[in-house]
Amino acid sequence: MEAKREYWLGFDLGGTKMLAQVYDADWKVIGRERKRTKPGSGATGGLDRVIETTKAAIEDAGITCEQLRGIGIGCPGPVDMDNGILLQPPNLGWETVNVKQRMESIFSCPVAVVNDADAGIYAEYRKGAAQGARCVIGVFCGTGIGGGCVYQGEILQGANGASCFEIGHVQVMSNGPRCGCGQRGCLESVASRLAIASQCARAAYHGDAPYLLEKAGTDLANIRSGALANAVKQGDEGVKDVVREAARYIGIAIGSVVNLMNPDVVILGGGMVEAMPEIFVDRVARSANKRAMPAFRDKFAVKPAALMDDAGVLGAALWAEHVLGGTPSAS
Amino acid sequence: MEAKREYWLGFDLGGTKMLAQVYDADWKVIGRERKRTKPGSGATGGLDRVIETTKAAIEDAGITCEQLRGIGIGCPGPVDMDNGILLQPPNLGWETVNVKQRMESIFSCPVAVVNDADAGIYAEYRKGAAQGARCVIGVFCGTGIGGGCVYQGEILQGANGASCFEIGHVQVMSNGPRCGCGQRGCLESVASRLAIASQCARAAYHGDAPYLLEKAGTDLANIRSGALANAVKQGDEGVKDVVREAARYIGIAIGSVVNLMNPDVVILGGGMVEAMPEIFVDRVARSANKRAMPAFRDKFAVKPAALMDDAGVLGAALWAEHVLGGTPSAS
Repeated sequence: MEAKREYWLGFDLGGTKMLAQVYDADWKVIGRERKRTKPGSGATGGLDRVIETTKAAIEDAGITCEQLRGIGIGCPGPVDMDNGILLQPPNLGWETVNVKQRMESIFSCPVAVVNDADAGIYAEYRKGAAQGARCVIGVFCGTGIGGGCVYQGEILQGANGASCFEIGHVQVMSNGPRCGCGQRGCLESVASRLAIASQCARAAYHGDAPYLLEKAGTDLANIRSGALANAVKQGDEGVKDVVREAARYIGIAIGSVVNLMNPDVVILGGGMVEAMPEIFVDRVARSANKRAMPAFRDKFAVKPAALMDDAGVLGAALWAEHVLGGTPSAS
Repeated sequence: MEAKREYWLGFDLGGTKMLAQVYDADWKVIGRERKRTKPGSGATGGLDRVIETTKAAIEDAGITCEQLRGIGIGCPGPVDMDNGILLQPPNLGWETVNVKQRMESIFSCPVAVVNDADAGIYAEYRKGAAQGARCVIGVFCGTGIGGGCVYQGEILQGANGASCFEIGHVQVMSNGPRCGCGQRGCLESVASRLAIASQCARAAYHGDAPYLLEKAGTDLANIRSGALANAVKQGDEGVKDVVREAARYIGIAIGSVVNLMNPDVVILGGGMVEAMPEIFVDRVARSANKRAMPAFRDKFAVKPAALMDDAGVLGAALWAEHVLGGTPSAS
């Protein structure tokens, strides 16, 4: 007799770590595995590691592949959602690779591939702070700035089924700082953790952030969101100014998107927001409302993400259920 | 015996004129009426005039209301598409009004209300330059700048069913000129006909646009798109510079939208584009591609609108067919 297929597996493939979780029919986690993402191993070696991690999570759950209804994988960078292809993810340094095909051949269950920020927003839409929203947009402010959008219950998809909604690459400053994408003045170049840290390092150097200088120095690699949040608490004026200004710019980008898409919910997440939610939520909301047209002003709620770290992996599994779901195969 | 319902009526309600056209089952125009939009008569008087114009078009077609399957009305400004309500349209100076309810009580056929720029883009999607596109965005550059978006065959709708996609109010210049919406640096404040004319008037005053100065003077009201196009042809360097810079900014806004929505087709229309298509299409495409992320670059076509003046009225009728359509009622 064939085992009943009743579990979903979610996978969050990040630039520094990967996490697989097995969910039961009530979306409880019954098995998990976490590994570091090894840099420099390319798509083939990297995908081998994804497969190992997936196998370990399945084992941890005490089930077999044949009991999985499907796997959802959230990946950084642009994704061809129609075909399950990861398109040259810059944060991984991988070449283009058909994740769906490779995974399906190993695990003999259907696989859905999705952008990680989209997965996070989809989780918020299904189980978090954006339930019931007609249009929800999300901004994740970490080392970079990611974005996601769920429109009428579906992840927004562009031409050829690509994931999109790269709000980090909306221009917010004419002739602004150079961005990793090659352009100038993108939101990411102005308001990401890296952008904030580089300005705060300068403030520390000039004596406007004595606490930060003492605790973290002026090396960007050491100026993490926790250090910045502590510096704000301890009264470093230089850090406060920079963080507030970053929040204002995030609000400007959101305000422009509000004028385009008129969302009902805006979710803020990522390490920077989690470290200083009170500053970000309030300032972003104020700045976005100022930028929005009168017809759209005060029509959207700005909320911190509710699901934190697990949003990505849960969202990938939920998305797999949504696109692969239907009824479970008969036992 | 009841007459067969086989005709659609499209209506384009503009700030200066209104146009109603009756279409047969092959989308041929069989009747029309055009009137000036009288300013200052408010929503009640204005809607009376819409009703008069509609009746005249029906009469011109030689049919009766009972032969109409439905009416589609394209209106300036934000629209509650779910309920057919026009929301305080600034260009008409009307208060909020339920157009659908009023029209349905008069014409005893279903009525759909849509934003005029969305209607134009929907027409391009169904019958014009964007047929078959998965995601098409449009920018109409006239006195103001309007935008429309058809996503997976449907007009993009925001919270509460409102029309949205106000690309004219995406910020393209930090601390830019003051916009009609109250903000600074919106695309409309930098690249609309009015914005271009105000810069060209200055150029004319300073002696950088001798042809324009001779033909149109320095009064913005006289500097129409035709005069600007002629000045470009006659070699007014001041005008050329301003128009090119405006096209560059339209491209920057489109590039940001490409990073959000990854459209396959971008339609450019409106009086300014129709007067100088060769300048606009080429410069906008170049600037948008420069601004787009590598993954989305050269993946979208920038095209001039194919349907010109009739796009709005045809699009309103086609949208009515799409949302009200189904099968015609039995004779």
